[in-house]
Amino acid sequence: MESKKILISDPTLRDGSHAIKHKFSKDDISNYCKLADKARIPIVEVGHGNGIGASSLQLGESLLSDFDMLSTARKNLKKSKLGVHVIPGFATIDKDILPAVDVGVDVFRIATHCTESDLSERHISFLRKKNLEVWGCLMMAHMVDTETLIDQAKKIENYGADGVIFMDSAGSFIPNQIKERVEGLVSELNIMVGFHGHNNLNLAVANSLEAIQSGATLVDACSAGFGAGAGNTQLEVLIPVLLKQNFDTNIDFNGLLDLAEFVISKFGKSTSSVHIDSMISGYYGVFSGFLVPVRRVALEYKISPIDIFKELGRRNIIAGQEDLIIEVANSIRDKSK
Amino acid sequence: MESKKILISDPTLRDGSHAIKHKFSKDDISNYCKLADKARIPIVEVGHGNGIGASSLQLGESLLSDFDMLSTARKNLKKSKLGVHVIPGFATIDKDILPAVDVGVDVFRIATHCTESDLSERHISFLRKKNLEVWGCLMMAHMVDTETLIDQAKKIENYGADGVIFMDSAGSFIPNQIKERVEGLVSELNIMVGFHGHNNLNLAVANSLEAIQSGATLVDACSAGFGAGAGNTQLEVLIPVLLKQNFDTNIDFNGLLDLAEFVISKFGKSTSSVHIDSMISGYYGVFSGFLVPVRRVALEYKISPIDIFKELGRRNIIAGQEDLIIEVANSIRDKSK
Repeated sequence: MESKKILISDPTLRDGSHAIKHKFSKDDISNYCKLADKARIPIVEVGHGNGIGASSLQLGESLLSDFDMLSTARKNLKKSKLGVHVIPGFATIDKDILPAVDVGVDVFRIATHCTESDLSERHISFLRKKNLEVWGCLMMAHMVDTETLIDQAKKIENYGADGVIFMDSAGSFIPNQIKERVEGLVSELNIMVGFHGHNNLNLAVANSLEAIQSGATLVDACSAGFGAGAGNTQLEVLIPVLLKQNFDTNIDFNGLLDLAEFVISKFGKSTSSVHIDSMISGYYGVFSGFLVPVRRVALEYKISPIDIFKELGRRNIIAGQEDLIIEVANSIRDKSK
Repeated sequence: MESKKILISDPTLRDGSHAIKHKFSKDDISNYCKLADKARIPIVEVGHGNGIGASSLQLGESLLSDFDMLSTARKNLKKSKLGVHVIPGFATIDKDILPAVDVGVDVFRIATHCTESDLSERHISFLRKKNLEVWGCLMMAHMVDTETLIDQAKKIENYGADGVIFMDSAGSFIPNQIKERVEGLVSELNIMVGFHGHNNLNLAVANSLEAIQSGATLVDACSAGFGAGAGNTQLEVLIPVLLKQNFDTNIDFNGLLDLAEFVISKFGKSTSSVHIDSMISGYYGVFSGFLVPVRRVALEYKISPIDIFKELGRRNIIAGQEDLIIEVANSIRDKSK
């Protein structure tokens, strides 16, 4: 049904930086980037929570320099693009943007408060002239009405950006409001529209789905929802939800789970993310009471619990039919022989 | 704008029973019911996770008898109605329903698999004749299409039920599917329609909001999302989200937070619920970086952090203006003098 290409930008290594006081190590970055590349994530955003040039006593000091973070990511991203967050004021062209260009950053996102897009003019124009991909971001977007948001976005378009992303920094929007804003932006602009959600009201996935349904081209999502505050849109939940509506991002499902498991094992569940098992159960429509026995049988049969869930879902198994897990496991093992 | 009365049924002490292997104590039940009554929750559902009569070796044995659970709840619910979940087969009329009527249960919910509503005929007719409030529930409703769901619901209507609730037992629906089902049910039935969500795809709040927007009269929601598997719709998140759309449930906001804090302190975060602070931040549209300083100042000034957030939201405070927290705290303290 839907054939439009949807871009996913993954700010786990940038927004997630807030959750660990900006202490990502080289190993964290290289391991995550390898997995993200394998999972076919289109854009991986890396750096201090407040973007390049922001490491400071006041905002929190990064463990690594911007150069170390970006060059480590660059080395490990083969197909995925490397993105950075840029807040004018913290980041300057000479000190921060030029070195980022040199290191091989593919996507620049120039972010201001939702009423201050003027501040991004110089940065966007500069990158436009260099023919680099550049987006404007409007933070705390819930603070303005749709009309003001469109006015601000039009400025960003005029500066030469490839697209504009509005950010629900406080996690305050509900789906109806997203629909109104995205439809307004899409009809008034000739550039792409994106959305960045937070999960404060447990609506980040729903708002991101609504954004895509209303015409957005890009949404941000983090592995395990790992990000500032309540966390961001949970990547490994969003992708199957988009799939249910036939929006295919070409992202690898197993790769997504590996990413989430890496984040959870490395940084713990610091944000209120949905458990991976619960997501799989929800996606395949199998009662969650099956989680424990399915994992046990998968381990015993050395097969993927995902394959078991998929087949249980296909067979419309319900509670009380737990014995069929063994039969399904046998059939999967037989097929793979 | 919206004046329709919305009913919230709270199954924390029933669906949450799954999460602690059916070991609710008398203290748990009486403390929760006192707080729920104070918070003006319309219906409080109590009992074994699989309903009355279900305690058994196979399904898990309750710590208390159905009588002890229900009579303890009854004593502590003054304004809130007392509800029970009833699965025909586990529960019989003589052994389980009659004693529940005697103990003073107000609301009976007769639940079957989504294709088996025939099984509820005897129970619904019996309660209808006694003029008691009775709903039919269709579990695992994602397994049938809208047409089948409506056919099953019509049977429930014919048996004499006051309403029909369809249950997303596996947490598998997305908002579009809820809209189609609720609109179909509302247009084809003369009785009330309700929805029960699970949060496997992080969509329980969004699906419940969609149900109400599409014409449902009742939704289920649990404190801290405490329920089976991925948990249910999170009550203290749903209510502010509904308020944003002008659906007033008359539930007390502070009372909701007391309920959630009780559940979290007593049972831990066994489900992936959103942190209360994050929710407040999302509701008032204040950057979540304010959480720590606001809590600290609230403690120091002996005022409610909610009042501070409310005022910060009203003033459209943004990151970098943390010093205004003190000014706001002073103004709140001065006003209360």
